[in-house]
Amino acid sequence: MRISADMPSDLEISRAARLLPITEIARAASIPDAVLESYGRYKAKIDPALLREDSARGRVVLVTAMSPTPAGEGKSTVTVGLADALHRAGKNVMIALREPSMGPVLGMKGGATGGGYSQVVPMEEINLHFTGDFHAITSANNALAALLDNHIFQGNQLGLDPRRITIKRVLDMNDRALREVVIGLGGPAQGVPRQDGFDITVASEVMAVFCLARNLADLTERLSRITVGYTYDRRPVTVADLGAQGAMTLLLRDALKPNLVQTLAGTPALVHGGPFANIAHGCNSVIATSAALRLADLVVTEAGFGADLGAEKYLDIKSRVADVAPDAIVVVATVRALKMHGGVPKTGLAAENLPALQAGVVNLHRHLENVRRFGINPVVAVNRFSTDTDAELRWLMDWCAEQGVSAAVAEVWAHGGGGPGGDDLAAAVLGALERPADFRFLYPDELPVEQKIRAVAREIYGAADVEFAPAALRRLEEIAARGLEHLPVCMAKTPYSFSDDPAALGAPSGFTLHVRDLSIKTGAGFVVALTGAVMTMPGLPREPAALRMGVASDGTPSGLI
Amino acid sequence: MRISADMPSDLEISRAARLLPITEIARAASIPDAVLESYGRYKAKIDPALLREDSARGRVVLVTAMSPTPAGEGKSTVTVGLADALHRAGKNVMIALREPSMGPVLGMKGGATGGGYSQVVPMEEINLHFTGDFHAITSANNALAALLDNHIFQGNQLGLDPRRITIKRVLDMNDRALREVVIGLGGPAQGVPRQDGFDITVASEVMAVFCLARNLADLTERLSRITVGYTYDRRPVTVADLGAQGAMTLLLRDALKPNLVQTLAGTPALVHGGPFANIAHGCNSVIATSAALRLADLVVTEAGFGADLGAEKYLDIKSRVADVAPDAIVVVATVRALKMHGGVPKTGLAAENLPALQAGVVNLHRHLENVRRFGINPVVAVNRFSTDTDAELRWLMDWCAEQGVSAAVAEVWAHGGGGPGGDDLAAAVLGALERPADFRFLYPDELPVEQKIRAVAREIYGAADVEFAPAALRRLEEIAARGLEHLPVCMAKTPYSFSDDPAALGAPSGFTLHVRDLSIKTGAGFVVALTGAVMTMPGLPREPAALRMGVASDGTPSGLI
Repeated sequence: MRISADMPSDLEISRAARLLPITEIARAASIPDAVLESYGRYKAKIDPALLREDSARGRVVLVTAMSPTPAGEGKSTVTVGLADALHRAGKNVMIALREPSMGPVLGMKGGATGGGYSQVVPMEEINLHFTGDFHAITSANNALAALLDNHIFQGNQLGLDPRRITIKRVLDMNDRALREVVIGLGGPAQGVPRQDGFDITVASEVMAVFCLARNLADLTERLSRITVGYTYDRRPVTVADLGAQGAMTLLLRDALKPNLVQTLAGTPALVHGGPFANIAHGCNSVIATSAALRLADLVVTEAGFGADLGAEKYLDIKSRVADVAPDAIVVVATVRALKMHGGVPKTGLAAENLPALQAGVVNLHRHLENVRRFGINPVVAVNRFSTDTDAELRWLMDWCAEQGVSAAVAEVWAHGGGGPGGDDLAAAVLGALERPADFRFLYPDELPVEQKIRAVAREIYGAADVEFAPAALRRLEEIAARGLEHLPVCMAKTPYSFSDDPAALGAPSGFTLHVRDLSIKTGAGFVVALTGAVMTMPGLPREPAALRMGVASDGTPSGLI
Repeated sequence: MRISADMPSDLEISRAARLLPITEIARAASIPDAVLESYGRYKAKIDPALLREDSARGRVVLVTAMSPTPAGEGKSTVTVGLADALHRAGKNVMIALREPSMGPVLGMKGGATGGGYSQVVPMEEINLHFTGDFHAITSANNALAALLDNHIFQGNQLGLDPRRITIKRVLDMNDRALREVVIGLGGPAQGVPRQDGFDITVASEVMAVFCLARNLADLTERLSRITVGYTYDRRPVTVADLGAQGAMTLLLRDALKPNLVQTLAGTPALVHGGPFANIAHGCNSVIATSAALRLADLVVTEAGFGADLGAEKYLDIKSRVADVAPDAIVVVATVRALKMHGGVPKTGLAAENLPALQAGVVNLHRHLENVRRFGINPVVAVNRFSTDTDAELRWLMDWCAEQGVSAAVAEVWAHGGGGPGGDDLAAAVLGALERPADFRFLYPDELPVEQKIRAVAREIYGAADVEFAPAALRRLEEIAARGLEHLPVCMAKTPYSFSDDPAALGAPSGFTLHVRDLSIKTGAGFVVALTGAVMTMPGLPREPAALRMGVASDGTPSGLI
């Protein structure tokens, strides 16, 4: 993200930085040498199995956001900047972030490591192969797929129906041409033809499982439970039926160790796992967050998309699996995004517009209400952009004060959290942490899946009703029949609106949420409710970022945004 | 490979070994700290760009073999054992080996890191993801494919004919169902449908390019020249036309640094790159061999399959690219394999059979003649198996003496090259190195491609004639028209016979070699001559090795052979 023409690019900033050897970062974070495995000079894996069990649990600050807009909110940038500011304030702090997916980096997104002077580094390594975790996940997923098609080829003892396979092969690539394919062509020696498709790796259930597993044994358990398809008489077939869970665990063994890197200001960061925030739960791995909580007093972490999706899933899915419930929640807002929610088109955001800001603040308001519904104190982080006027910022801060919500303007992109740009936000967060949270789930385990979906739709989204399409109703029957009503729900919904209509900005209410289908993720342990179309294999744009990338003969990279 | 029931498995031996930290291995090998990047405790990458340029060139010992049989010859085991024995003799030695492909490890092959007490370790890491090189190659190849199909989707400015795309997507997986596929289905928003297929990563031209590149700049050059397909009017289209070489180089940047590991006896080994030995040249990377030659006095390296394929390509392809021509060539032979070439079926190999041995030795004889044709002194390594009788070994050693060829029995599998099992072989090799080699290529650059193929067929294989199928003749015309006659040839032929008939064991002659097609690899810089069917995407067997693999909750792997 490049907000001002005066600033160097994220890659330039990252390359110009003097990084500390990762061993020094580890030492400062009291990570014992025996726990550390260096991957080059500036990356390391840590083995959480070797961490002391008796260390006290730190406190979690979850960074989420208002409903995102094309204007960009800078959530990762604020996450990094806030942690840097807490670090600067002398706190023992650690970041827990998702790993970027390489596909979008080659497409148009640029990196996902924060921006400006609030980045985790080295950005060009983290944004590309990093320590190979996503490649391991790709391999484990594709080994499963190869074993499955081989099972069918070798006689199909389990009676798998080739029309009802529920896993896909994956690549960490934006490859539109693989969305819908036919495989197994070429005659009896080559395979059994069937319609299939590839997803991007981050959309796989293996990725979701990886991020929810508490340890190796739990990983094997969850992998075993993944439903790979159905037999001709509609019985579910799992990974355990194929016997693939051992090899898959072996392929994921080293990847499961969280990756330690640093911010530009030298704050330690665990960057690990990266599931989609629509068809999956959108947070970094449970293992990384849990490890950070044993290593630091304060853990700053992030959830994908806006608070209606990412935070809700962090709270109702991830916090059910492990003791990682947040003690404070930061909701990132920008004047620009609020004005968009107030009706201003993207091209008009540079001009001051108090009426639009006042109209759009309903979006932020509902997110703050939702956070309070979970019993947690919200803090508003106003991520300042150069076009924000003093009047706009003043109005927004006053509004937060009226709502009784802590708020601070953050200028961490241009100045870095290691400078004073994040101090106010750090102070607001530390203030919020003084008031105890009283966390509660939105719904109990025993509520049937249908009612869970209705609870999220009504209480978080503001929907009046939920309509289930016939396919979704059939899945609800299957859930009841298979005894899976205890699973939490994972909503796949547009991030741009509280409703399933991406054009309905602000804080819509009275609408009907349409659930077109459900996807039962028995490995990850949730039921995905699909509202609208979800793209699980992105395409490349007309001018892919990849075509601008290169390497000088001395190894210096270029073209990463 | 498990030859005797009394021996622990390769994985058990590897796990039981006490490995030295890779930093100590590096220090002993005089690798400066600044050149080393650790990947965990027992693996590291070295940056050859940082090695001193002025160090003297070491000497190369190339390990190759007689024509392989299903009995197994143990070429990698001898390579490791020989290096260990030279190390034990006080020599400054380094191994250069190919990296194993993960696909076959999950299938049936087991690992490719040597065997018994002559292994490079840690075998379970080297055999699986290792340092991620093959994943990087997979990614670079598949980024190219995605960019190509995106180019067609976005308007196809270059006029690429979707029926004449010459690259395929790849996975490091044995996945039969992907051999023949149709991609781009689903309508105008999803892509342009075309027939396609996946290869295993090691079969890709990107892999061959990676292994022949001398440095980053050369890598970019070679990638740029890869022919990705043809236009509707039959003009070749290259990677440079698509503009993908920069991103591909960036994705390969770190992978291009050779990987340092150790043998069970603590000998340093660079394990890097791994192209097929049929449609590619079957040797580890030029960069690794060149780096080893600057770090050690003696470099022991290996070429795939028998000497007719692997060694010929090492000499005529790899040695043309860089100054890596061998000073001695070890031809691995076994009593068992010689008896098979003498007509004994696999089930009858345990019994002593001198007549069969005497009949089968013609195979070894021709390989030795071929080595001499290149001006290099051969050494025969008889890899001893427990069923070999004293009479058989004595006859074979006497035969070698009659031929005036240095020979030694090696017992490195059962005892390890660090023990006395490899001492005789080490002495024989050191003896051969005292006699200067007079290396010459089989054919000059300027010989036309057709004549190069005829030269290999006649002089190395013993063919009377070569027959080119119509497709091959059309390619010869294209080669002439494109000005590519200077390229060396890369023969894709069965390894089991000197001829293109895998059943013709021993030393067939008077036969006609059938070239059914040519494949022009403008990036790798050779023309592949296809004789018979070449499998570029293996399948999984009825009971894949993967189904026996697993990980204990403490991380201990199991099920790797």
